[in-house]
Amino acid sequence: MRSSTREPDELRPIHFTRGYTRHAEGSVLVEFGDTRVLCTASVEERVPPFLKGQGRGWITAEYGMLPRATHERSPREAARGKQSGRTQEIQRLIGRSLRAAVDLQALGERTLTLDCDVLQADGGTRTAAITGAWMALWDALAGLRANGTLAADPIRTQVAAVSVGIHEGIAILDLDYAEDSSAHTDMNLVMDGEGRFIELQGTAEGEPFTRAELDGLLELGGYGIRQLHDMQRDALGL
Amino acid sequence: MRSSTREPDELRPIHFTRGYTRHAEGSVLVEFGDTRVLCTASVEERVPPFLKGQGRGWITAEYGMLPRATHERSPREAARGKQSGRTQEIQRLIGRSLRAAVDLQALGERTLTLDCDVLQADGGTRTAAITGAWMALWDALAGLRANGTLAADPIRTQVAAVSVGIHEGIAILDLDYAEDSSAHTDMNLVMDGEGRFIELQGTAEGEPFTRAELDGLLELGGYGIRQLHDMQRDALGL
Amino acid sequence: MRSSTREPDELRPIHFTRGYTRHAEGSVLVEFGDTRVLCTASVEERVPPFLKGQGRGWITAEYGMLPRATHERSPREAARGKQSGRTQEIQRLIGRSLRAAVDLQALGERTLTLDCDVLQADGGTRTAAITGAWMALWDALAGLRANGTLAADPIRTQVAAVSVGIHEGIAILDLDYAEDSSAHTDMNLVMDGEGRFIELQGTAEGEPFTRAELDGLLELGGYGIRQLHDMQRDALGL
Amino acid sequence: MRSSTREPDELRPIHFTRGYTRHAEGSVLVEFGDTRVLCTASVEERVPPFLKGQGRGWITAEYGMLPRATHERSPREAARGKQSGRTQEIQRLIGRSLRAAVDLQALGERTLTLDCDVLQADGGTRTAAITGAWMALWDALAGLRANGTLAADPIRTQVAAVSVGIHEGIAILDLDYAEDSSAHTDMNLVMDGEGRFIELQGTAEGEPFTRAELDGLLELGGYGIRQLHDMQRDALGL
Amino acid sequence: MRSSTREPDELRPIHFTRGYTRHAEGSVLVEFGDTRVLCTASVEERVPPFLKGQGRGWITAEYGMLPRATHERSPREAARGKQSGRTQEIQRLIGRSLRAAVDLQALGERTLTLDCDVLQADGGTRTAAITGAWMALWDALAGLRANGTLAADPIRTQVAAVSVGIHEGIAILDLDYAEDSSAHTDMNLVMDGEGRFIELQGTAEGEPFTRAELDGLLELGGYGIRQLHDMQRDALGL
Amino acid sequence: MRSSTREPDELRPIHFTRGYTRHAEGSVLVEFGDTRVLCTASVEERVPPFLKGQGRGWITAEYGMLPRATHERSPREAARGKQSGRTQEIQRLIGRSLRAAVDLQALGERTLTLDCDVLQADGGTRTAAITGAWMALWDALAGLRANGTLAADPIRTQVAAVSVGIHEGIAILDLDYAEDSSAHTDMNLVMDGEGRFIELQGTAEGEPFTRAELDGLLELGGYGIRQLHDMQRDALGL
Repeated sequence: MRSSTREPDELRPIHFTRGYTRHAEGSVLVEFGDTRVLCTASVEERVPPFLKGQGRGWITAEYGMLPRATHERSPREAARGKQSGRTQEIQRLIGRSLRAAVDLQALGERTLTLDCDVLQADGGTRTAAITGAWMALWDALAGLRANGTLAADPIRTQVAAVSVGIHEGIAILDLDYAEDSSAHTDMNLVMDGEGRFIELQGTAEGEPFTRAELDGLLELGGYGIRQLHDMQRDALGL
Repeated sequence: MRSSTREPDELRPIHFTRGYTRHAEGSVLVEFGDTRVLCTASVEERVPPFLKGQGRGWITAEYGMLPRATHERSPREAARGKQSGRTQEIQRLIGRSLRAAVDLQALGERTLTLDCDVLQADGGTRTAAITGAWMALWDALAGLRANGTLAADPIRTQVAAVSVGIHEGIAILDLDYAEDSSAHTDMNLVMDGEGRFIELQGTAEGEPFTRAELDGLLELGGYGIRQLHDMQRDALGL
Repeated sequence: MRSSTREPDELRPIHFTRGYTRHAEGSVLVEFGDTRVLCTASVEERVPPFLKGQGRGWITAEYGMLPRATHERSPREAARGKQSGRTQEIQRLIGRSLRAAVDLQALGERTLTLDCDVLQADGGTRTAAITGAWMALWDALAGLRANGTLAADPIRTQVAAVSVGIHEGIAILDLDYAEDSSAHTDMNLVMDGEGRFIELQGTAEGEPFTRAELDGLLELGGYGIRQLHDMQRDALGL
Repeated sequence: MRSSTREPDELRPIHFTRGYTRHAEGSVLVEFGDTRVLCTASVEERVPPFLKGQGRGWITAEYGMLPRATHERSPREAARGKQSGRTQEIQRLIGRSLRAAVDLQALGERTLTLDCDVLQADGGTRTAAITGAWMALWDALAGLRANGTLAADPIRTQVAAVSVGIHEGIAILDLDYAEDSSAHTDMNLVMDGEGRFIELQGTAEGEPFTRAELDGLLELGGYGIRQLHDMQRDALGL
Repeated sequence: MRSSTREPDELRPIHFTRGYTRHAEGSVLVEFGDTRVLCTASVEERVPPFLKGQGRGWITAEYGMLPRATHERSPREAARGKQSGRTQEIQRLIGRSLRAAVDLQALGERTLTLDCDVLQADGGTRTAAITGAWMALWDALAGLRANGTLAADPIRTQVAAVSVGIHEGIAILDLDYAEDSSAHTDMNLVMDGEGRFIELQGTAEGEPFTRAELDGLLELGGYGIRQLHDMQRDALGL
Repeated sequence: MRSSTREPDELRPIHFTRGYTRHAEGSVLVEFGDTRVLCTASVEERVPPFLKGQGRGWITAEYGMLPRATHERSPREAARGKQSGRTQEIQRLIGRSLRAAVDLQALGERTLTLDCDVLQADGGTRTAAITGAWMALWDALAGLRANGTLAADPIRTQVAAVSVGIHEGIAILDLDYAEDSSAHTDMNLVMDGEGRFIELQGTAEGEPFTRAELDGLLELGGYGIRQLHDMQRDALGL
């Protein structure tokens, strides 16, 4: 039995609140159990210097955690004067994952910035962030289509993410903080609407994992992602 | 008529949500109209070096704004590698205001950090932050009394803050962003439960203001603060 | 009796030395007793990006303290790699105060930078800085008129600043460091030539202050500012 | 045919030069074709603060690239004042991978720092770095055993890493820069001496990859790693 | 004829004002013509970590230039967030030069910090700084002897510095800014009371210089230093 | 007898490896005994802003030391977020020395960056760096002539550098780390092909040095430089 009393293949309660804040072109509060991440999508009519004049757009992401999102207060990165390696690793992952979802040519010369800010953390903040950011992105692009800025839909696929791990020899889905701390292997999967992989990151904490264990994790993760994809579509009315 | 259609002496709808997040010892979401600030109070059993061994505690504050809390996205301070002068000015103001509310001797050698993070901005974020932070502080100290850490209540007074300004020759209360942008004078008042001043900051934007105008602003601000004090007590069940 | 043996409403000896250094377009050493601040005004024929092409000018200020201007040596901000919150708060205050003195449209597309560097500190460095910076600004603008760069005088009003405080129940004027350290309330007033307020910042250190105490401080501050305005005009030969 | 004219399952020529520099406790120049990384292991008789007094050691890694290791000169990170997100991501990966190789309890309260500096880059710098760093680590620990500092060998397993990718529909091993730039999927595998996974990071550049493609990549990577393990043992005389 | 109308071997008018500011243990305003540097010596009863517990003291120096000490305003280093390479080079030179003047053992476990801040620059700021800093150091140490902190005088020798250069084929002494800009060679000499060299730094700007030219520069510099040494002793009443 | 068992006027074994890395336009590994520095020259078809449109080129240098190039590991500057004063001092010296070797007008509007990275340090890294950087520069410029970018050779003179010092009263040449640590005087000479001085930096560590000692050091240094010039020409086939 996992510490959360969930079944090994059971997601936490998942909620999406669209339009959580009013200024952003897309704004979704995503909850995976007690993990709550505010994802906003901001549209700007310019691209980074390396893309200028090519007619293509750009998707980028930034990630942050409120100092007291965690059990113990962590120092504020803005006050320390730099983002941690962990923060940069996560925001790079979010950016890559979302770029895979969009036809940058069809987007035109504009930038979408996904800000994923963790209001409360209980494990799985990066997978929640990716799952919610895709929805904020969808909302922002729907707005651009609605107001005639975009003729065609640049979305190529649906994107969701989930974590899987091995806890006392058993593969479990969507780990909370307590489970994550005691898991022997931690893997994050980002998958598209056809069940293909966009990102795959597995880390052995303690014992390395075997090919057989890996297969179990991939199967379980795919099962979780399919449910998340359904919930995203429900929330968007698709 | 002000742009918000409120009466000159009318506050925006004010809401306090206690326990908005679960890890912090005190956690209040404060809303002044569309301005929403998450205030958390974190207790740590240590004091800064300059206070070590004196038996006294410390109260400090940090302030931040999510990048897309505003109409236009603003750069993330953690990514830029430093806090703006505005951010530092505001967090110093919050810290001074809250220290005035607490008997640091009675607090004992511990630090309370008030994190005020703006989820959505529509003017008056610093006054909302002070008003909400006092409540988060109250909740955190109530917890320390409840669990026996503190025998006596170190709270000396109630603290709330509000902005006032002069708009087309008329003193108005609790300015939203549009009003703030067009006001000729902008003043922030922080007052205690006896109607005394803790902080007073007035800035002439455009024309300097006369002593008569100042008197009008002080009167109006005091009227607003008394209402905020009532709402704080209601929300805390005092 | 105040620790400085001055009367409660007595300013410290005030001196202005114009042309203290030779490269700057305006350069004034201002002394409020033992507080000595070198204020220089530098003219540059360009404006910050946000003002480009609008035909308006800009006034900005920077503040610094030599490491051993103080009783104890303080770390050099350039060596620490950042300006403190206090420094930023002060330089923002100086900048706002001086901008209120100038018609930026009449200034044309140029920037005046006021550098206020404290050579020796004994309380009231920010009020001395504002009072001296206005004179350096005046000298720099006089030079621009003299050499034909400016046809009209962009100065709208005279600006001076002074501190007031409450010490053992009595309102006192122009506090030195010892008085500032023991005062219960500390207020800085920046006023124009017509006795109107440009900036007003009051902080209760210890006990909050009442409306009656505030009225006393405002009266005393106004009395001090009028004297400073006279001395400024004397020094400029107006 | 791949651009490098190698067979799909063919590694580049691999060379290890032990004792490449003389001060470090372990020092290995590793070459994967034209990619050359200098890996040094430094022993320090202290641990980071969070480990003090627990009797356990620590392994950490830092990664850098000489400015002209690349085709175009890249800015020096020390001159820019910060490490890029890519650099931090890589050094965190190296650190985690090497920690998996060592029994930190048996290491005792000391720190081993693996510095991996790229002298020349042609793709696969992170996998070369991990593969070489394990050897530098081995040499440093052998020294500690030889001089009696360590009674038992804290090495738990052998570690090597390799990249695999999909290029024009075919899985290829150990991509050079040109291949990496045109590959549709890029995956890095870190594996132990028993063929188990320590780290697994796959990124779809362009098209997401299917489960069948993933299986092919894992098989090919495992095949490459077994060869690297053999070469490491040869070089160490094991 | 040099641009300054001085004879080739003529120093600028030199002035020392002791006790220029009141808080520092030593405080000297040094003027070499229009170059004015405020040198303060601060005593602190502690040493840097690498010297702890060895019974020896430390001398260090910091250098700064007010933004408008120069013809054109230069950016404030504290605002830019770092000291320039030039600043660091100069402050390291001052520190080394002054350490040569003191028996660090006799100084005991305390640190003297020499802050050299340029109020007005007209060439030769580093040589003026060294010459003035030695006097501030002397005053500070005299104070420590006078109040009984030090039994013996830790000063080992007198230190002064001067620049020499080659201008249109002629060796000239103590270059001002205009001469420095057009000189073909720039050399700074730091010498002790016995005419020996503490530091010697020569740079060919344009044409390299011959051994014969070097000999001429050394002779001229020594002649200038002897005069500076006399003036220092005069000013100190030695 | 010096600690290295070399004669006082004996250089360490000197080796130059041209083409040490393949991407840079010039790339030389220079060895002065156990000191090994990789010098690369990178050509970029642009100049810094202050030179734009003047038809002249620029030469600049950067210096770095791998963390474990030294006996004890030193912190990585990129991780600390800034270059030390020592690093900046050295890279400024290298840049000035190499600019003296080149006719910047003949170079045309392009920048050559010399990166000097110390792989292994045993004293004299800056003199080895200058000596090797000149060769990398030569190779890069030869390439520009060979491919027709440059019609004429912008090299004005040959440049090499060596250290000299006084050890137990005797002048010694090309000090290694152990000798440098115990030398009483440390001097670096940079000289051109005609035996003239480009840079001269002498520092008394401990006792100041006399004019007679200086003469001995200059003589010895000149003798060493002539040998280095011969070796440079040999290596370049000139």
